[in-house]
Amino acid sequence: MTEATAKRETARPLGRRPGVHDTRQTVLDAARARFAADGYAGASIRKIAADAGVDAAVVMRLFGSKDDLFAAAMVMPAEAATALSGALEGPADGVGERLTRAFLELWTAPASSGPLLATFRSAVTNEQAAAHLRAFIRGRVLEAYVPHFPDVPDAALRATLVSSMLIGVVVGRQVVGIDAMVDADFESIVGMIAPLMQAVLTAEP
Amino acid sequence: MTEATAKRETARPLGRRPGVHDTRQTVLDAARARFAADGYAGASIRKIAADAGVDAAVVMRLFGSKDDLFAAAMVMPAEAATALSGALEGPADGVGERLTRAFLELWTAPASSGPLLATFRSAVTNEQAAAHLRAFIRGRVLEAYVPHFPDVPDAALRATLVSSMLIGVVVGRQVVGIDAMVDADFESIVGMIAPLMQAVLTAEP
Repeated sequence: MTEATAKRETARPLGRRPGVHDTRQTVLDAARARFAADGYAGASIRKIAADAGVDAAVVMRLFGSKDDLFAAAMVMPAEAATALSGALEGPADGVGERLTRAFLELWTAPASSGPLLATFRSAVTNEQAAAHLRAFIRGRVLEAYVPHFPDVPDAALRATLVSSMLIGVVVGRQVVGIDAMVDADFESIVGMIAPLMQAVLTAEP
Repeated sequence: MTEATAKRETARPLGRRPGVHDTRQTVLDAARARFAADGYAGASIRKIAADAGVDAAVVMRLFGSKDDLFAAAMVMPAEAATALSGALEGPADGVGERLTRAFLELWTAPASSGPLLATFRSAVTNEQAAAHLRAFIRGRVLEAYVPHFPDVPDAALRATLVSSMLIGVVVGRQVVGIDAMVDADFESIVGMIAPLMQAVLTAEP
């Protein structure tokens, strides 16, 4: 599709008309928000198109189907993999704290929190999103962690337990919004859980 | 509604016709499964009624509205509160392991896992379900834990962090289905995480 076509299709009565890249990004943002709020089953191309201010036919032409749009919306931001593997570099005795900080920050940073929260929300009700999350954990989390700790037994179980417990903290704080966790400051939470993650990651007694 | 009315309304061509209690329970089970699979927005009275093998009008007469049906389906099983407060009884130095076992067992036991998983799945996309989960944590988890540990600082934060991390483990194992966690045996997981929960709950160094 040419930019001109996209412009015609997204025709708005006023203001700058977005190009195809803008349109694609706008639709992806709308899809993430809608999948996150309504789940896979509850979100529809029609609603996503309306949220993005474009016609449903534009969404179909850009992404092909609801499944393909979902897959595109669920792609993990590159920052996520980089931040997590970066946290594993450096001395082993600070890895629990570095990983805890990197993980919790990813889920609050504007660029990454939207896609991550949308993927997570969708993964708990939709098998395709769960498969994306499993692939991310297998491909990025385990491939970054396991070679760093060749002497740690049950390395894959340890890395996935740590990821799961950290996701649990994100869920309590940002998704369910448990009072005590919302009210607590970031450093108190890091101070309480980083030593635990350290113990699991390095198999300390 | 009389039992006779319910029988007429749920009329099935063959077999025993369910009474009003059966019908109510059948609808609740269907609602939990449907809310868990499709989220609040994706589930409809029509689909839930079809799953339960009754007419949508029966569901409306028994529960009044989708919101009220949702609230009834999300009520936490009494076993959940009893098992968690039971785990807090006894010597402080085994509390981490008792709570970890009780928590993970609740999410796998047939009677409690359905309602708990349905509440959790719904809570991540629906504010009403999130409010139910917050109320359960505030009313049952915190009221059971905080008086048991009067000398522990930040007791509410500690109890909710532990609950969140344990929910994270349930999500990794049972909802997302991360390979390494699905393959690991129950005792390996308890052995790795119970000491962490102990440290957070009792504020051990």
